Amino acid sequence: MQQVDPIALEELKAFLPCETPDSWVKEALKNQEMLLVNHAYLEKCAARTALNLMFRHPDKPDLLHKMSKLAREELVHFEQVMKIIKKRGIKYKSHKPSRYAVLLGSEIRKQDPEKVIDTLIVGALIEARSCERFDKLAPFLDEELQKFYTSLLKSEARHYKDYITLAEKYAKEPIEERIRFFTELEKEAIETPDPLFRFHSGVPVNAVPVNTVPTKEPAQ
Amino acid sequence: MQQVDPIALEELKAFLPCETPDSWVKEALKNQEMLLVNHAYLEKCAARTALNLMFRHPDKPDLLHKMSKLAREELVHFEQVMKIIKKRGIKYKSHKPSRYAVLLGSEIRKQDPEKVIDTLIVGALIEARSCERFDKLAPFLDEELQKFYTSLLKSEARHYKDYITLAEKYAKEPIEERIRFFTELEKEAIETPDPLFRFHSGVPVNAVPVNTVPTKEPAQ
Repeated sequence: MQQVDPIALEELKAFLPCETPDSWVKEALKNQEMLLVNHAYLEKCAARTALNLMFRHPDKPDLLHKMSKLAREELVHFEQVMKIIKKRGIKYKSHKPSRYAVLLGSEIRKQDPEKVIDTLIVGALIEARSCERFDKLAPFLDEELQKFYTSLLKSEARHYKDYITLAEKYAKEPIEERIRFFTELEKEAIETPDPLFRFHSGVPVNAVPVNTVPTKEPAQ
Repeated sequence: MQQVDPIALEELKAFLPCETPDSWVKEALKNQEMLLVNHAYLEKCAARTALNLMFRHPDKPDLLHKMSKLAREELVHFEQVMKIIKKRGIKYKSHKPSRYAVLLGSEIRKQDPEKVIDTLIVGALIEARSCERFDKLAPFLDEELQKFYTSLLKSEARHYKDYITLAEKYAKEPIEERIRFFTELEKEAIETPDPLFRFHSGVPVNAVPVNTVPTKEPAQ
C-alpha cells in the first residue's frame, strides 16, 4: 500500500477543529453505495469550484495555475470512483446534497476580495475533512477501497494548504480569525445530528453511542 | 514535428461549412497576443462546458466519462497556452468575448432533451473550427507556436466526433437537420464582417481582400 506522509497527516488533522465521530464511520460502512456515489459527486464539485475560481480571477496567475491542476486531479479521482461504482453495479445518480457545503457556503461573503478569501478557506476545510475521512475509513474498507482511499489521501493531503496559501496571498489582512470562524462552523456541521447520510454529514440521527467504532469491517 | 492524420483532418474540414477566410489569418498574425490570450480563455470555456454537461446529466455514464476526460485535456491545453503567454511577457486578462459563441449559444433550445443535443452539436462545431484554425495558422507561426498548434490539432482533432457521437446517442430522432441548422449559423459567424478580433471571429472589418494570405510570417 502507498504510504501517506505521517507529518502531513498530523498537520492536516491539526488544521481541522475535530475528529470525525465514530458513529459517522459506522454509518458510512453500512452505506458504502451512497458513500461512493456522493464521493464521486464531490470530486466533480471540487473541480467545478476550482474552475469557477479560474473564471472569476483571470488576473491571478498563481490561482489559475494551481486551480487548473487541482481541477484535473479531482476529475481523475471522479473517473476513478466512477470506475469502482460501475464495477460494483451501483447506479450513479444525483441525490440531495449534504447540509455541510450549504452551511459553510452560506457564510461566504458576497463581494471580492472577501468572497475569494472565504471560498478558498472553505475549500481548504472541505479538502482537509475529505482526507481525514479517507484516513478514518480506510482501515475498515475492503482491499480495493482501502487501497483507493489511501491513494487519494496521499494525493489530496496537501490540497488544503494550496487553498490556504492562496487565501493568505490575496488577503489584505491576516486571515486567522476568518479561518477560526469557518472551522467553528465546520465543527458544528460535523458534530451535530444530521438526518441525511453523506460523505460530509454530521452525527447520524439515532446513532449508536460514540466510541464504538468497529475494529474490523462489520458483517454486512 | 508531430504528424496530424490527414484523413482525420479532411473529415474535420468536411464537417465544417466553410474555410476560414484568408483575411482572418492575416489579422490573427498581426494580433498574436490577443490570439493567445483568447485561446487560453477558450480552453477554459471548453472545460467549463464539459463540466456543466456532467452536472446536468448524472444519468448518462458515457457523457460523464467522455466529458471528464475532455475537460482534463482542455485544462492541460489551458496550462500550456498560459506557459507560452507567461514566457512571452504577455498579460493574461479577460476581454469581451467573441460574438461567435454567443450567436451559436443563443439558438440552443432551453429544455432537455433538445438542450443537450444542441449543446453537443455546438460543442462539436466549436472544436472543429478551432482545429481548422490551428491547421490554417500553423504554417505562418514561429517554431514554438507552430509546434504547439500542430500538437493541439493532433490532440483535439477527434473531439468534435465525440460530441456528435454523444448527440446521436441521446437524440430520439436523426440530428442531421439540426447539425445543418447550426453549421449554416456557423458559416454566417465566420464569413460576415466582425469588428472584434478573436480566435473564432468572422471577417475582420476593413479586411484586406481575400486570397492574400501571406506565404510566410509577415515582418512585424
